[in-house]
Amino acid sequence: MTDPAAGASSPRPQALSIDDLADFAASDAAEGITFLNEVAARFPDAISFAAGRPHDGFMSLDDIGRDLQTYRSWLQDRGVRDDEARARVLQYGPATGIVNDVIVEHLAKDEGIAVRPDAVLLTNGAAEALWLTLATVLRPERDDLLVVAPNYPGVWGAAESLGLVTRPAPADEDLGRSLESAAQLSFQAGRRPRAVYLSSDSGNPTGVSLTERQRSEVLGVARDLDLVVIEDNPYSLVAGPADRRPSLKELDPDGAVVRLGSFSKTIFPGLRVGYAVADRLVQRSDGTTETLATTMSRLKAMVSVNTSPVAQACVAGRLISNGLSLRHANSAVAQTYRRNRTAMVEALRRRLSDIDGVSWTTPDSGFFLQLDTTFDLGDDELLRSAEEFGVLWTPLRHFYGAHPAPAGMRLSYSFTDPDEIDRGVERLARFLTETSTNTKESHVG
Amino acid sequence: MTDPAAGASSPRPQALSIDDLADFAASDAAEGITFLNEVAARFPDAISFAAGRPHDGFMSLDDIGRDLQTYRSWLQDRGVRDDEARARVLQYGPATGIVNDVIVEHLAKDEGIAVRPDAVLLTNGAAEALWLTLATVLRPERDDLLVVAPNYPGVWGAAESLGLVTRPAPADEDLGRSLESAAQLSFQAGRRPRAVYLSSDSGNPTGVSLTERQRSEVLGVARDLDLVVIEDNPYSLVAGPADRRPSLKELDPDGAVVRLGSFSKTIFPGLRVGYAVADRLVQRSDGTTETLATTMSRLKAMVSVNTSPVAQACVAGRLISNGLSLRHANSAVAQTYRRNRTAMVEALRRRLSDIDGVSWTTPDSGFFLQLDTTFDLGDDELLRSAEEFGVLWTPLRHFYGAHPAPAGMRLSYSFTDPDEIDRGVERLARFLTETSTNTKESHVG
Repeated sequence: MTDPAAGASSPRPQALSIDDLADFAASDAAEGITFLNEVAARFPDAISFAAGRPHDGFMSLDDIGRDLQTYRSWLQDRGVRDDEARARVLQYGPATGIVNDVIVEHLAKDEGIAVRPDAVLLTNGAAEALWLTLATVLRPERDDLLVVAPNYPGVWGAAESLGLVTRPAPADEDLGRSLESAAQLSFQAGRRPRAVYLSSDSGNPTGVSLTERQRSEVLGVARDLDLVVIEDNPYSLVAGPADRRPSLKELDPDGAVVRLGSFSKTIFPGLRVGYAVADRLVQRSDGTTETLATTMSRLKAMVSVNTSPVAQACVAGRLISNGLSLRHANSAVAQTYRRNRTAMVEALRRRLSDIDGVSWTTPDSGFFLQLDTTFDLGDDELLRSAEEFGVLWTPLRHFYGAHPAPAGMRLSYSFTDPDEIDRGVERLARFLTETSTNTKESHVG
Repeated sequence: MTDPAAGASSPRPQALSIDDLADFAASDAAEGITFLNEVAARFPDAISFAAGRPHDGFMSLDDIGRDLQTYRSWLQDRGVRDDEARARVLQYGPATGIVNDVIVEHLAKDEGIAVRPDAVLLTNGAAEALWLTLATVLRPERDDLLVVAPNYPGVWGAAESLGLVTRPAPADEDLGRSLESAAQLSFQAGRRPRAVYLSSDSGNPTGVSLTERQRSEVLGVARDLDLVVIEDNPYSLVAGPADRRPSLKELDPDGAVVRLGSFSKTIFPGLRVGYAVADRLVQRSDGTTETLATTMSRLKAMVSVNTSPVAQACVAGRLISNGLSLRHANSAVAQTYRRNRTAMVEALRRRLSDIDGVSWTTPDSGFFLQLDTTFDLGDDELLRSAEEFGVLWTPLRHFYGAHPAPAGMRLSYSFTDPDEIDRGVERLARFLTETSTNTKESHVG
């Protein structure tokens, strides 16, 4: 047998070339994630408006043991023997999940969603739920994904890792027309728009929720084009009870919508538990039907077997100890987010109003707002902002995947406090003033 | 805009056709997993030699809180403030992991592997480590995966979910020649054999470990053909200190081997924590290098963000409380597995020796043995065995993916006890006697 590998006689194997690995390895999305992490690590003392972390002032390590004990008692009350409870939490479990019954009660109570347990798939965070939905529903050689843009970097990364073509649909007031135009591009390329991904409440990066008109337009276009609607909604339960809006899944309960859910913002991220509600029926080769969640669980079995039953049990315990509702359990932290939002918006108004070419969204709730600029703000500017001004943010281009992006940044206010927000915005104002002025001068010159 | 979707006027969306979804949905591997789970669920009272579960007699739900507390104290001893410790465990974390330093010390102590923390990627079980390795290292349009066969259903499923061509290499004594033949088929098809997957100790389903000669042959072929060796070894640390064998990663420490690891057999499966040791260097487009583990972490960031820091902290706590060594911590459960192995082998000898056309492997250690038959044992026979004889096992064909498989079954003895093993083998003997006789009669007739 001939040896096709050069240099194989050397005892230490050669470095692999990144171009010889899978496409994602050298992709823009991967480089973007790496860059943002590296900047955050290089400037640990900068004030950060960059990370999308929840506030952790209400979290405690002791919660974990308590939540597990709550779930164990709940099982005992239902006649589950202690050795069975132990096996359920500590052993391997079904790919679909072990706490689907508890999630179903929570969805009915907090989200107005009525589904059976086999319509729910527990996942390693909502990110895995998104990835599994895309990987199951779309065939990359034929199907395109519409994305209401701007949107969270994870959706562009997940699509890229699957080799999917994405078609951004700007989140205009007339979202129906925006989606139809994006779909038209897909048809013109001889392809099929198969699904649309969007965040309904407190978008990332905008902080703005879809209007009722936008919601009904999405559902109308989805019906017309037979699109699977992938609705992400991680911020709805930290908005506080007053800000309750009907989700797309509530407005269209008949299976067209796959609803992604996360407990990272409502319990804590360290559990990595999310879910997909996917009750659309799938017709199998033998004529029987199953839920889309069940179909997706077979891919999950190949990729990660199942979601940590320990982490699932913590989620279930927390839900049970709050009467299956996180909307009310989160009212204290929701108040913190509202406080921070007010602090951020007021600081921006106070310190940025005089800077030319800068405007920003007013978030309904959530963790973020979007600041638009008439001058470019890319990775180089972020580095300069970190180095010279000690303030971090996220360039808006990361919310458009590989597509053309307007200039601007995302500002997070979720995990900080009003004092720090004010000091950070003061630094930001100096950075933006200088950058705006330099740009003008270079235009004049 | 025209509407290409039939039936879109109906308010309830039509069922999706499974043929319209991604290929995996209707695949043999997925159907196989579904079938085996359904049989297990339909016959809960049967004696099961089917599932690959660890023994749970030594596991306790109370361990979780204790292990977390151990990790927290360990961080405190190292000067980590309590709010930092809280954020490390409860917040989002790096895609590469939060306990890489602890894993590195464990690998040095238990496995004779010396790597730096950036060569380790923490994953949602070893299954995700395998999937990420395959997804990163192989390009499906060009690269083939050699698999030492028979092997665990997960590897065939993972490869199928990625659209990879697999080439089985029978685990012959002359494993070098077997691998070369499999590679030759790949070359003949105009493709490239890029990696080889194998389990070095206590194979699944055979229970038999690779000999020293086989180990050195694998490394030789890998060097000649520049193959990435993907070494799985979930059973090495439950074999007991006496059965220590050098892993491929120990024998070839220079980066050619990606070592997959699991804590499912040594701590418990419910944590879903595994890892890949991938210290091979990757040269990036800008000329800098990084570990393969780092490259893989960028795909992980797109698929599941990071591995539950809570679950990682439990693993670290357990390692720390056992002086970084699980080999000794597992000596009690290792004794249980040896006891069960002896019970299984003796029961087979006692009850099956008179049945024509039946033979079996003698496992070194691990959870399984392989029983070979001269008559066919497929899914239909499993159903009959469950229904009429009350005993479950796994048809051997599931360990060959979509490739031709010899007749036989895998028998698990890990999670049961000698009494049940004896009763189960008695049932199995009756089933095999009847099946063997029926086959002979139908051959004679």
